[in-house]
Amino acid sequence: MILAVTLNPALDVTHHVRHADWDGVNRPHQVLTRPGGKGLNVARVLRTLGADVRAIGLAGGLDGQAVRDGLAAAGVPAAFTPIAGQTRRTFTVVDEAAGRVAAFNEPGPPVSDDEYRRFLDLFGGALAGCSVAVLSGSVPPGVPAAGYAALTRTAVTAGVPVILDADGPALRHALAAGPAIVKPNLAELEHAAGHSLRVGGAPGGEPDLAAVAAAARELTAAGAGAAAVSLGPRGLLAVTPDGAWLAAPAARTAGNPTGAGDAVVAGLALGLSLRSAWEQRLRACAALGAAAVAAPAAGDISLDDYRRELDQVQLAAIGG
Amino acid sequence: MILAVTLNPALDVTHHVRHADWDGVNRPHQVLTRPGGKGLNVARVLRTLGADVRAIGLAGGLDGQAVRDGLAAAGVPAAFTPIAGQTRRTFTVVDEAAGRVAAFNEPGPPVSDDEYRRFLDLFGGALAGCSVAVLSGSVPPGVPAAGYAALTRTAVTAGVPVILDADGPALRHALAAGPAIVKPNLAELEHAAGHSLRVGGAPGGEPDLAAVAAAARELTAAGAGAAAVSLGPRGLLAVTPDGAWLAAPAARTAGNPTGAGDAVVAGLALGLSLRSAWEQRLRACAALGAAAVAAPAAGDISLDDYRRELDQVQLAAIGG
Repeated sequence: MILAVTLNPALDVTHHVRHADWDGVNRPHQVLTRPGGKGLNVARVLRTLGADVRAIGLAGGLDGQAVRDGLAAAGVPAAFTPIAGQTRRTFTVVDEAAGRVAAFNEPGPPVSDDEYRRFLDLFGGALAGCSVAVLSGSVPPGVPAAGYAALTRTAVTAGVPVILDADGPALRHALAAGPAIVKPNLAELEHAAGHSLRVGGAPGGEPDLAAVAAAARELTAAGAGAAAVSLGPRGLLAVTPDGAWLAAPAARTAGNPTGAGDAVVAGLALGLSLRSAWEQRLRACAALGAAAVAAPAAGDISLDDYRRELDQVQLAAIGG
Repeated sequence: MILAVTLNPALDVTHHVRHADWDGVNRPHQVLTRPGGKGLNVARVLRTLGADVRAIGLAGGLDGQAVRDGLAAAGVPAAFTPIAGQTRRTFTVVDEAAGRVAAFNEPGPPVSDDEYRRFLDLFGGALAGCSVAVLSGSVPPGVPAAGYAALTRTAVTAGVPVILDADGPALRHALAAGPAIVKPNLAELEHAAGHSLRVGGAPGGEPDLAAVAAAARELTAAGAGAAAVSLGPRGLLAVTPDGAWLAAPAARTAGNPTGAGDAVVAGLALGLSLRSAWEQRLRACAALGAAAVAAPAAGDISLDDYRRELDQVQLAAIGG
C-alpha cells in the first residue's frame, strides 16, 4: 500500500471560462470541485491507475468535510486528523481562449501542537504495511519547517522509503533524513541551488539541462537517493543510482498544468512500490504528467491519454 | 419586519491580491467568505443598519450549510427550504494594483417542483407580520421565469409591498403584478428597454439621464409603483409617484463594487418600511451604495462610511 500524506489539503475549485473578463462578471461553463493539495492529487492519480493507496492528513470545517466526501466518492481510502481550523480552498480559472491558467491558493489553517501530535500518531500507525510513503506539498502554519525531516526519519526507520515533493526549507531540512526520491520542479530546484538554472539566466527561460542535472546531483549528494526534476512541457530529468535520463513527452499538451507534477509523483511512487526499472518509471512519469495537463482538473487523468502518451515518450540518457 | 428572499443564494468567496497574475499562481493576502446572493447581501446590510430583517430561500449541500452558518454568525434570522442540489459559489478576485474586480459566478443548482412548492409554503407563512418583501437576484434552474410574478402577486394580495431586483423575463413578467419598487441597474434597464441608454449609444459609455428616466417611466407605466435605477459611481435615478430625482455620491469611491446595488435595495426597503420621504430614501440609498464599494466584500458596509457619504450626497430633481 502507498501512503499519500497531505498536511495542507485543499478543496480545489476549477472554473473553465471561454474568454475571461478580468474586470467584469464571468459565468463559468464548467465548474469542477475536487479534493486537492498535492498529496491528494497524487492519491487520486494512483487510484485511477489501480494502485492500493491510502491518504492521510489534517482537515477541518465544512471544506474539510467536502475533501473527505470527495475522496470517498473517488474511492480513495482516507483518514484525517480533525483540526479546529478550516481547510483551505484553491480557485483556478482556466481561460480557454487565451490558453492561460490563473490559480488563487488560500493559506492553510493553523495547526496546534496537540493536533499535530495526534497526526504524528496517525502517521506512525499508517506506516505499518506501507511500501512507499509520499510526502507532498506545503506545510500549514504551526507545523515546523523540519516537519518533513522528522516524518522522513520516522518512515525510513520503519523501513518505508519516502518520496518527498517539497520546497525551500522543508526540502532542505529533509535531505539528510534520506528520502528515496525528491521531486522538485524547476523553480523549486532553483530555490535549492540558490541560482538560476535557465539558459542565459533569464527568468522564465528554457531549462539549462546540464545545470539542472548538476543541481539534482547536489540533492543526491546531500542525502536523497534520487532526484527527479519536473520541467513542465519538457518532461522530467532524473538523477538516480542507475543513471540519469531526460524523459520527454512527444508534444506540448494544451490544457491545465495544475497537478501535472503530482501525476509525476504518482508515477514515481508506483514505480518505487513495484521496483520497476528507472527507465520504465520515467517513461510512465512523463506520460502521466502530459495526461494530467490534458485533464480539466488537477488530480484527474484519463487512462486513454496516459497510454497514448506512454507510447510516445522520448527517453535520453544524460552523461556526467 | 423586512423579508429578504433569495431563490439562488451563494457562498461568496472574495480573494484580495496585490497584483494579480492571470497566468500563474497567486496567494491572496485577504480571503473573505460570506453568505451571498443578492437577497442575502440585502439582509446583511439591513442587519448592519439595525433593521428587523429575516432571510428566506433555498439551500443545499455543504456550501448551503456554510451560508446558514454565516447568516447565524452575522445575526440574520434565516430559514431555507432544503434542496438536493448544492448551493453555488461565487469567486471574486480584487486586483488591488490594477483596481480591477473579476467575478466568477457559478450557476445555481436545479430546484425540483416539490422543493419549490415547499419554498412557496415557507414564503406564504413568512409574509405574516412583514412590512416589505424584497425579491432579489437570479432564479435557479427549475423555477419558472414567471416565479417572481407569482411571488409578487402573493405578497401584494397579503398586503405586503414588494421591492423587486431582477433582470430580463423575471422582471418583465412581474411588472403587471404591481411591485412597489423595481431596482434595475443600467444594463438591466437597457435589457428591459430593448435599446442603449448611453450617451451616443456606446457600450460601456456614460448613462443618458433623459433616456434612463424615460425607460424608468416605462416600468412604472407597466405596473411598478416606482423605479430606482442604480448607475454605479453616478448614484441612482428614481422615478416615483412623488417626483423624479438623481441622487449622486460626492466622489467616485475606489474598491469592490460587487453588492453596491444590494446596499441600494436595502436602503429602499428600509425607507419603504419606515415610509420616509423619497428624497430622504434616495440620499440614504446613494450613500449606502458608495459605502458598499468601500467595503472589502459584498454585503458588508461600515456605518462610519455610510454616515460620511450621507452628508455629501447630491440630490437633484429631474423634470419631465
